[in-house]
Amino acid sequence: MTNRVKFTKMHGAGNDYIYVNTLKYTIEDPESFAKKWSCYRTGIGSDGLVLIGSSSVADFSMRIFNADGSEAMMCGNASRCIGKYVFEEGLTKKTVLTLETLSGIKELFLSVQDGIVTEVTVDMGNPKLEEVTLADGSKDILVYQAVSAGNYTFKGTAVSMGNPHLVIFVDAVEEIDLAKIGPLFEYHPYFPQRVNVEFAQIISKKEVRMRVWERGSGITSACGTGACATAVAAVINQKTDREVKIVMDGGPLTIKWDSATQKVFMTGDAVKVYEGELSL
Amino acid sequence: MTNRVKFTKMHGAGNDYIYVNTLKYTIEDPESFAKKWSCYRTGIGSDGLVLIGSSSVADFSMRIFNADGSEAMMCGNASRCIGKYVFEEGLTKKTVLTLETLSGIKELFLSVQDGIVTEVTVDMGNPKLEEVTLADGSKDILVYQAVSAGNYTFKGTAVSMGNPHLVIFVDAVEEIDLAKIGPLFEYHPYFPQRVNVEFAQIISKKEVRMRVWERGSGITSACGTGACATAVAAVINQKTDREVKIVMDGGPLTIKWDSATQKVFMTGDAVKVYEGELSL
Repeated sequence: MTNRVKFTKMHGAGNDYIYVNTLKYTIEDPESFAKKWSCYRTGIGSDGLVLIGSSSVADFSMRIFNADGSEAMMCGNASRCIGKYVFEEGLTKKTVLTLETLSGIKELFLSVQDGIVTEVTVDMGNPKLEEVTLADGSKDILVYQAVSAGNYTFKGTAVSMGNPHLVIFVDAVEEIDLAKIGPLFEYHPYFPQRVNVEFAQIISKKEVRMRVWERGSGITSACGTGACATAVAAVINQKTDREVKIVMDGGPLTIKWDSATQKVFMTGDAVKVYEGELSL
Repeated sequence: MTNRVKFTKMHGAGNDYIYVNTLKYTIEDPESFAKKWSCYRTGIGSDGLVLIGSSSVADFSMRIFNADGSEAMMCGNASRCIGKYVFEEGLTKKTVLTLETLSGIKELFLSVQDGIVTEVTVDMGNPKLEEVTLADGSKDILVYQAVSAGNYTFKGTAVSMGNPHLVIFVDAVEEIDLAKIGPLFEYHPYFPQRVNVEFAQIISKKEVRMRVWERGSGITSACGTGACATAVAAVINQKTDREVKIVMDGGPLTIKWDSATQKVFMTGDAVKVYEGELSL
């Protein structure tokens, strides 16, 4: 007996997932579904599978399975797409929503024009200065201090958004050989759990150009927590306003570090690419 | 005004295209559609776009647009998928079909079980021995003769299936460093138009394992004309029967070089992955 499943392909800042409404369709084994259908050529092709479901503690729940079948804690780009999905599919009329994720309940704020969700803001929580492990084994924060790897020395700021980031401001970010330099700093002894590395160039008080080397993934077109960490580092180092556009290869995200709540809010696009249907 | 278009994602031997029935949906600008929607992440992701249409000289017509927007002459893997599509969508009840392509009218033979097309055979036309350009400028065929490039010397057979192929039989095909050796032979002076290179290992009279380096594309998981050329070379060199399974990374194709008509027939899978709908 074949089981027909409808899905929607969406992306936020180029981060693309297969979205399935589990209120309507049951996915028995999401790990193997994500693995099989994320394949290009013989599958749908995606960064993974996102299951939208009900929740007893929030308006909706989100579960994310990576293309390798592993479950992810949270993804800001996927959260924005869920906001667009549930509103435009008529699952809710709310424009402020709560979403249950493996890393807690997240709040979404939808911008709506003529029934279409044009942008979504996600509460990304409170940042903190990441403590690094110094050569003598002690721990300390790292704000605009020299870090050396290979033949390179840069001034870095370590910020945690739940995951660790090393933000390095440079004068000409396009000239950075990211494929070569990224891994040298990812594995720097300061970060025994390894670190995401952001190279950022200040364009103005309101705009930063950023390129990211993701821990375990290498060069990617966009990183939501990396954009947040970059904005936080820029504010701490007095380089930008508290609300700043972070421009990555995959597109821009607007990050606001709210002074009252100390929370970081990320605003960006959510794009519905197409609707699909397949037989399991 | 948005224009909704339904499409079907299909693959044959891992060669995946977006299929649109132009009897129902009009694609104004297939070049830019192919380019935009073949993109992974922000599009559908594919090797290109295939338009299924009516024909005044055959049962149906096929036009193929590559992911870069250029129009292709013909593709055996796509032809098989069209056979499955038109039968299963109820556009025809015939199991022997003609298809108009830019390289002439092709015949398709469908294997049907319980209304499902399980395999399709495509008439790939007549092969010929490819003439190569020798050092003195004269031309000659090449059958199991030494060809040298870099530090490598192999015995090669040159076969044309409309496009040029150099087939090289080796004892252990998995040990060939295809990424290194492929381009050396692709640009061999014998082939001023460059050549597709197939390394093949005889498993039995009925089976050959083959790996392909495609002219302009490099290593690919399967090449229909390459499988045909390999079978023809194997027969000419008396290594296999006239019907032989060619096993590539993307899967097997069965090739039969018919002795009566001298035509090459290719049989393989055609897989419907999912149906989709998008707004242009």
